[in-house]
Amino acid sequence: MSNQFDNLTLHTDAYEINMMQTYFKAGLQNRHAVYEVYFRKMPFENGFAIFAGLEKVIDYIQNINFTDEDIEFLRSQNEYSEEFLTYLSNFKCTGSIRSFVEGELVFNNEPMLQVEGNVCECQLVETAILNIVNYQTLIATKAARIRMAAGNDPLLEFGSRRAQETEAALWGTRAAYIGGFNATSNVLAGKNFNIPISGTHAHSLVELFQDDYKAFKAYANSHRECVFLVDTFDTLKSGVPNAIKVAKELGDKIHFAGVRIDSGDMAYLSKRVREMLDDAGFPDAKIFASNDLDEKTITSLKMQDAKIDVWGIGTKLITAFDQPALGAVYKMVSVENDDGEMVDTIKLSNNAEKVSTPGKKQVWRVTERKDGKSEGDYITLNDENPNDESELYMFHPQYTYINKTLTDFVAKPLLTDIFVDGKLVYNQPGLADIKAHSEEVLSSLWPEYKRELNPQEYPVDLSTKCWDNKMSIIKEVHAQIKQKQDKGEL
Amino acid sequence: MSNQFDNLTLHTDAYEINMMQTYFKAGLQNRHAVYEVYFRKMPFENGFAIFAGLEKVIDYIQNINFTDEDIEFLRSQNEYSEEFLTYLSNFKCTGSIRSFVEGELVFNNEPMLQVEGNVCECQLVETAILNIVNYQTLIATKAARIRMAAGNDPLLEFGSRRAQETEAALWGTRAAYIGGFNATSNVLAGKNFNIPISGTHAHSLVELFQDDYKAFKAYANSHRECVFLVDTFDTLKSGVPNAIKVAKELGDKIHFAGVRIDSGDMAYLSKRVREMLDDAGFPDAKIFASNDLDEKTITSLKMQDAKIDVWGIGTKLITAFDQPALGAVYKMVSVENDDGEMVDTIKLSNNAEKVSTPGKKQVWRVTERKDGKSEGDYITLNDENPNDESELYMFHPQYTYINKTLTDFVAKPLLTDIFVDGKLVYNQPGLADIKAHSEEVLSSLWPEYKRELNPQEYPVDLSTKCWDNKMSIIKEVHAQIKQKQDKGEL
Repeated sequence: MSNQFDNLTLHTDAYEINMMQTYFKAGLQNRHAVYEVYFRKMPFENGFAIFAGLEKVIDYIQNINFTDEDIEFLRSQNEYSEEFLTYLSNFKCTGSIRSFVEGELVFNNEPMLQVEGNVCECQLVETAILNIVNYQTLIATKAARIRMAAGNDPLLEFGSRRAQETEAALWGTRAAYIGGFNATSNVLAGKNFNIPISGTHAHSLVELFQDDYKAFKAYANSHRECVFLVDTFDTLKSGVPNAIKVAKELGDKIHFAGVRIDSGDMAYLSKRVREMLDDAGFPDAKIFASNDLDEKTITSLKMQDAKIDVWGIGTKLITAFDQPALGAVYKMVSVENDDGEMVDTIKLSNNAEKVSTPGKKQVWRVTERKDGKSEGDYITLNDENPNDESELYMFHPQYTYINKTLTDFVAKPLLTDIFVDGKLVYNQPGLADIKAHSEEVLSSLWPEYKRELNPQEYPVDLSTKCWDNKMSIIKEVHAQIKQKQDKGEL
Repeated sequence: MSNQFDNLTLHTDAYEINMMQTYFKAGLQNRHAVYEVYFRKMPFENGFAIFAGLEKVIDYIQNINFTDEDIEFLRSQNEYSEEFLTYLSNFKCTGSIRSFVEGELVFNNEPMLQVEGNVCECQLVETAILNIVNYQTLIATKAARIRMAAGNDPLLEFGSRRAQETEAALWGTRAAYIGGFNATSNVLAGKNFNIPISGTHAHSLVELFQDDYKAFKAYANSHRECVFLVDTFDTLKSGVPNAIKVAKELGDKIHFAGVRIDSGDMAYLSKRVREMLDDAGFPDAKIFASNDLDEKTITSLKMQDAKIDVWGIGTKLITAFDQPALGAVYKMVSVENDDGEMVDTIKLSNNAEKVSTPGKKQVWRVTERKDGKSEGDYITLNDENPNDESELYMFHPQYTYINKTLTDFVAKPLLTDIFVDGKLVYNQPGLADIKAHSEEVLSSLWPEYKRELNPQEYPVDLSTKCWDNKMSIIKEVHAQIKQKQDKGEL
């Protein structure tokens, strides 16, 4: 395919390039800065999220390069100086990126990715990083919710036709695999990411033969593994009886894996179908279900004792239907001043929850040494190490009277070096290892944080130093504004 | 960028390829068939939708080609025969596609795209076509809803960072432009699709300077067109006073286009900001607003007499937040039988609304000759032409007692030849023409179908012949199942 978007360098908001020109014109293009990515609210009101997107971010960063065609397009806007365009044509990313690894648990208001470098490169990459990380983290999290509802049942990702364009279908299924799915219907995703692929046939096969029996027979004649779709004409009167008929006739020549139901009352139909399969001597044949399912319908069907063994999940997963955007933001937290010193920065706001936390930070996952279970995340300024302390005082960043002191703990840093001074230093693990990591870290989380409805809020606390730093900067900014007003400067 | 998904041939569900092998093994790979794309429910409970996605579908179809690597991957699945893999390696699309043109109005339960060819090619392309058309049509429609709420105000697409991965950001903004937006923040979309780009600066510019005044001044020193973002520290106490100060100081050296508010109470702030700008002698400076806006918040802000001139719309548009999937399906409607005759096919279902309408069809937009206003869409079998009739009897396909007879009408066919026997015959218009077409067709629609809340249901009727055909096929299928049951075959 002649992909029109091979080069994603211009996949950025115009204001990023406009600000780059402002920095360049002011001679500030080499000012050092730190930006952090975080989201403010837990997606789906879930108790945790699962970080994903790093693999594509790495690829994106490595391939940033303004082509002659890009420069020509920018020139045509009559907005950019020739000096600036020359600067862009020689532009390369030389900064550093630290990030959570894929499959890691992540919570709201903690930096999951950090970009450090000159202000121009930091600015340029904002849009694409958010675009990638927002979506993939959202889908990995949604998949984990569905996994919890499904228990150990196989989960198949079936969403390609309803995904929001092609890259969402492909990277979305990778994120779903990280979050707990077992296979995908998408062949290209299977090929590129080494995810098992799954699928049998559609209604159209039956329509072509105008007959369930003939269609199933033809399918069985060309595939050993058979799951017959039984609801084209009538599930109980035609689909299932014909599936059984073919399975009996062909015996060991095929593996009659089961039947799939794609419409109707799943609770009722699955129980009737189960009886029919059992009565016919196929107790091992599975019942596959697909039809706008998600964690809520799975939970409901299980409560009704529906006899569904394998779940095909499409639309609700791949679009994160009940909350289709994560809303992670990218905020400057520290920048070099005129004297060459790094100063921590803040974004205030009339919306209280939009106030950022200043300073280059590290996130530590704190667990009790005795059981390895989660006690919360602890955000420090970058030069702190909680493992140096004998006692760890953790308090809620808004309701500071909620606090606890830990003595026998381990704190593990979660922001890992990915790029250092423009060079990739991180060895990205294979997808199977990422998935295994996700399963492992989830097992360290208390069940109270994992339940589908109204989970306990996981503590994400600021160190005393980090909290004091934030409060003093807020006061300082307010004082400065008041001072200017008093002087009549405004 | 090393795009991993240059070739989209395998961007399909595994069951499509499995069915292709079944057809191939049964010697049916050249059976002629017709499939149609339609959705069952209007998105957002809107009164109309706007078709989009054809440009990418054309590109996709033209580039279908199984590479050696693709074949190798399929071979590794131990599911496909060597004969079939050889068939795939020589595979080319030789069929025909008819489609609505981009920007056309489309309603539920009418075929907006039709694929005709051998069953194998028809099957292969299902997933990608739905993936593309579902998303782009959804976003064009969402954009049209927002356009109606915004009246003639400029609308800027700001959603890239929240889009579901990169292609959604890029093709989504193109769909938004078709649906009524004026510009995008995405530079790459601007370049590739020739959409005006828009954007000024972010909070980080102000954070770098630690001061609104210095930041605005630096921006103004590097850009003639200035819109200052005023809510980094305090909108009314710092942002706006400093914007005014810079505008006054620089006078004609810049064009002070206005200020942007990105947080806080938009209704209150915009009124206060308007007063401040007017009092300072800048009545032409515009107020830009952005912050999770959509058609509902725009309508609400207008009701409150908010003083917002330009709307930046992100998340809610680009993800179609309130309904992130369109749900169009792809159904076989006609297929060649053993005698080489085309027979019409149906997909029945325990869910009544999932029953398809058999037969290769055409969709006609019927307007009154006297005023050019819409009377409804009329779906016929392909060999019918309503313009040959002096009287057109239109009736509701479920509630058939709702009917009318037209005499002075024009019926315009909406499915246009795109590919004929594998050859592209359609001249895709430029994006500006597509956008203009969309505006034109919307103007022919009665306002009752266009209102945001509870629009009148637009008539989408079946011709008598088409309706009779459907009813007789339903009866026939039921009779066949009963006959087999009576014979004890099941």
